[in-house]
Amino acid sequence: MASVFETPQFEAFVKYGALSLAKMLNMSLLTGVVRMAKGSFANKEDYTSSGRLSPDELKAKLATPDPFLERIRRCHLNDMENIPPFILTGLFFVLAANPTLDSCNWHFRIFLASRILHSICYILALPQPSRLLCFTVGFVTTCSMLLRAIAAVW
Amino acid sequence: MASVFETPQFEAFVKYGALSLAKMLNMSLLTGVVRMAKGSFANKEDYTSSGRLSPDELKAKLATPDPFLERIRRCHLNDMENIPPFILTGLFFVLAANPTLDSCNWHFRIFLASRILHSICYILALPQPSRLLCFTVGFVTTCSMLLRAIAAVW
Amino acid sequence: MASVFETPQFEAFVKYGALSLAKMLNMSLLTGVVRMAKGSFANKEDYTSSGRLSPDELKAKLATPDPFLERIRRCHLNDMENIPPFILTGLFFVLAANPTLDSCNWHFRIFLASRILHSICYILALPQPSRLLCFTVGFVTTCSMLLRAIAAVW
Repeated sequence: MASVFETPQFEAFVKYGALSLAKMLNMSLLTGVVRMAKGSFANKEDYTSSGRLSPDELKAKLATPDPFLERIRRCHLNDMENIPPFILTGLFFVLAANPTLDSCNWHFRIFLASRILHSICYILALPQPSRLLCFTVGFVTTCSMLLRAIAAVW
Repeated sequence: MASVFETPQFEAFVKYGALSLAKMLNMSLLTGVVRMAKGSFANKEDYTSSGRLSPDELKAKLATPDPFLERIRRCHLNDMENIPPFILTGLFFVLAANPTLDSCNWHFRIFLASRILHSICYILALPQPSRLLCFTVGFVTTCSMLLRAIAAVW
Repeated sequence: MASVFETPQFEAFVKYGALSLAKMLNMSLLTGVVRMAKGSFANKEDYTSSGRLSPDELKAKLATPDPFLERIRRCHLNDMENIPPFILTGLFFVLAANPTLDSCNWHFRIFLASRILHSICYILALPQPSRLLCFTVGFVTTCSMLLRAIAAVW
């Protein structure tokens, strides 16, 4: 008897789930790099390690975060809103909805591509509706898997 | 030999886990709808797509987000703090703590109901302690499952 | 045939995954306690329950959140960015990468310790690079598991 974990569907789930997480973890790295480059931090102790500032300069710096950094933070938050739900949905989909390998692969690939393109649109501030379109494609993909999983156990 | 995925406990987990995710994903939709209705966005490129503003108007709009939108954002963030941990806890609970079907069903139903009521209290700004009560019920439900799972593997 | 859920690796995963979630859920409790202690809330209805304020006082309170509370909120957000991805990565690692029990235990223990120390550094505002170091150790641990999982299914 083959375990569910040895099916190609589950293998595809692990592959694309892990790649989505890797994409999301990269946002933490990017935030760190941009914080260093811009010299813009959220905590007072982060400043004193890299050069002394007067109390007034420190207060001003903390009160006005860099706009580009805020953009990256929002992009990261959008990943946090979408990628963990996608992976949990994917788990339900693979374990409960008995999907074909093609169905798994295309759901997972379209989601991952939509999130990568979403981040590119967000970070480069590309004109709308490019970002909205990327978001929608990923969101609909997750909903499609979620509805299949709910239908399977109803 | 029946796989763990064919138990009614696991089926209940998939059903209520998927419904909780659907509830959380709806917050993204609601945010989008309210942003359109209020004409309040977080990024400069989101404004230029829907009508031209002078640079000063744009700056003012970006600096003062709509209070109702901020409320929905906090409500969504509260879901993000609670719903993915609930699902991961539920997975540990079902796989490790060997719960009865009744125990599963009631934990999952109470949690889901508490989160739906929490959002209603939050969005309608109902007087406290209504929202606090809803939050606490969901939080205690998650803790109860988490403690059972920890006890089972200790 | 032993199920994957009866392996000591999976048991270690449930134990440390559940402890990480418990650590993260504690941040919600801490936020609540500090909100009460500081009398600093994010919503107008939270104030009217605990004492009447004039509209101007209320507006001022809502506009200037307590700095210590903001610090706890950022600390909680950092947990949300790192702990659910760790658990999902741990699931992929245990199910797909066929790790030894020692490898599991050490990855999980180091991650959990790094997150607890990270929160201590954050909340007490310890001088940098203490917090950066804790973050990096946990982040690298997650990446190590993620790369092993991706390599296993490639």
